[in-house]
Amino acid sequence: MDEFVLIRRYFQSLTPASADVVLGIGDDCALLRPAAGEDLAVTTDTLVEGRHFHPQARADDVGWKALAVNLSDLAAMGARPRWFLAALTLPHADEGWIKAFAEGMGAMAAQAGITLVGGNLSRGPLSVSITALGSVPAGKALRRSCAKPGDAVCVTGTLGDAALALELGLAVECARFDPDREFLKARLNRPQPRIAAGHNLRLLGRAAIDLSDGLAGDLRHILEASWVGAEVRADRLPMSEAFQRLAPAAARLRLQVAGGDDYELCVCLPPERVAEARAKLGLPLTEIGHITREPGLRWLDADGRLLETELSGYDHFRDDTA
Amino acid sequence: MDEFVLIRRYFQSLTPASADVVLGIGDDCALLRPAAGEDLAVTTDTLVEGRHFHPQARADDVGWKALAVNLSDLAAMGARPRWFLAALTLPHADEGWIKAFAEGMGAMAAQAGITLVGGNLSRGPLSVSITALGSVPAGKALRRSCAKPGDAVCVTGTLGDAALALELGLAVECARFDPDREFLKARLNRPQPRIAAGHNLRLLGRAAIDLSDGLAGDLRHILEASWVGAEVRADRLPMSEAFQRLAPAAARLRLQVAGGDDYELCVCLPPERVAEARAKLGLPLTEIGHITREPGLRWLDADGRLLETELSGYDHFRDDTA
Repeated sequence: MDEFVLIRRYFQSLTPASADVVLGIGDDCALLRPAAGEDLAVTTDTLVEGRHFHPQARADDVGWKALAVNLSDLAAMGARPRWFLAALTLPHADEGWIKAFAEGMGAMAAQAGITLVGGNLSRGPLSVSITALGSVPAGKALRRSCAKPGDAVCVTGTLGDAALALELGLAVECARFDPDREFLKARLNRPQPRIAAGHNLRLLGRAAIDLSDGLAGDLRHILEASWVGAEVRADRLPMSEAFQRLAPAAARLRLQVAGGDDYELCVCLPPERVAEARAKLGLPLTEIGHITREPGLRWLDADGRLLETELSGYDHFRDDTA
Repeated sequence: MDEFVLIRRYFQSLTPASADVVLGIGDDCALLRPAAGEDLAVTTDTLVEGRHFHPQARADDVGWKALAVNLSDLAAMGARPRWFLAALTLPHADEGWIKAFAEGMGAMAAQAGITLVGGNLSRGPLSVSITALGSVPAGKALRRSCAKPGDAVCVTGTLGDAALALELGLAVECARFDPDREFLKARLNRPQPRIAAGHNLRLLGRAAIDLSDGLAGDLRHILEASWVGAEVRADRLPMSEAFQRLAPAAARLRLQVAGGDDYELCVCLPPERVAEARAKLGLPLTEIGHITREPGLRWLDADGRLLETELSGYDHFRDDTA
């Protein structure tokens, strides 16, 4: 089975005819036609076996998640998903694996309305790099750098589910008949990028980021880019019911702020717009704190007292050096 | 040293201020502003350690080549290089390696006038996936699918140099005081994507492809996409002087048509335009054959007799299955 046959068989069907795709898979490049008056939002993210997913992970889950994490970046800018390219490296031409991978990636693509326009198949240790392109009205994207003192800090959905799933060993376990574990596992393996929420927040929010490395680390990126600080109430972080039932009390805060893999959005917006944003979103939007003029990120308890905590996001290389 | 510090230190400088980059590295996405009336040409390609480059390869060469192979795809469409994203996976946060890699990639980027706008650093087995974006006047890109019977088949530069370098073990050897070996080694490790040639050929050629897997396999893609065949004179394949001096006679044809890694362009154009194309190109353009109505690729010797040969391009998975 050669590379070109595999690509034609499993990936070409993910390139439907579309007015903005002049030429899809099968030439040296794809040819795209962006609309006038729009900026292009582009991002790239890689999943590596053993690092970002379990060696026994299902191929369809890997395909889904590899695309979802990129779509989450588009969502954070309020961009509409348009096109993506996938570079897949795998040790053997395992046709069953490739088929399932393409199905999972295709399901996420269909849900998001994004079109596969290019790719690459190489032999090597299993990893997937995806580059996603979205469109946003020129000059209107949501950035990290525009938060202002007084802004409310809000997050979509719930935090800590994926990190708890990982800690409970649910990444590959078959969690039959336990809806809580099934829910947490799906949160880890099949994240839902908040595309519609990002689109709505683009018009109401001042700054946003997607939560991939954990709230503590990711919010800090907004604070640094905007030259501000924040106070966040640890007791207000939204928890799913499954998380409340299964997360040990002592581990909750760590899982929620440093666990990562949430793929929710953190958005800063004027407090008077929170109610409108919540009404538009169709998923929970929780106000967890506010932006301060004083730099730094401070965690407060339910009584507003400063928590002594050194919580940070996931960093791929931090354990390497002093 | 964390991921974000490394990216800022070594990669942010590759994003110079530019009118078509609304927002560079450092947010969830980069924001680009394509010009009206242009199509976007996009491509992605991966280099894996031990597969596409030697484990002892110099990091600056890896950075150069990872970008060059993508630029070669843009060249084949006649597109102008604009922006690229780099996803780098490496086992340790080896700062010296990352610095050299960024320098090599930066040197290629500067030469091509392309801007780094996004990236990703993960831990895992060493590999680099790059996605490159170029622009081309709407509807005017050079494709694989428009070759016509009677067209001349031409190639730029010389063929087989990189494959010979690999076979002579020059990938990492220090070939001091031997200009032939230095030349071949540079052809392997520092390929020169034919961007200006592609730009000029866009107005004169009917179909083109870049030679990455070897002429035999790559030309076949043009033939299949255009529903035509070709006759190619094996004795007319252009050879460098170093190749002529160092390639064993029995290995020459194989190295030239099945070796791969040439990153020259193969272009089909009306025979009456060959002279004009040659004059414009500033590098050798050799007519090696012509397109036929009869399908299939036939190799002829100097007397025009059919060569009995089963030569094909490099295929990443062919050795896996029957």
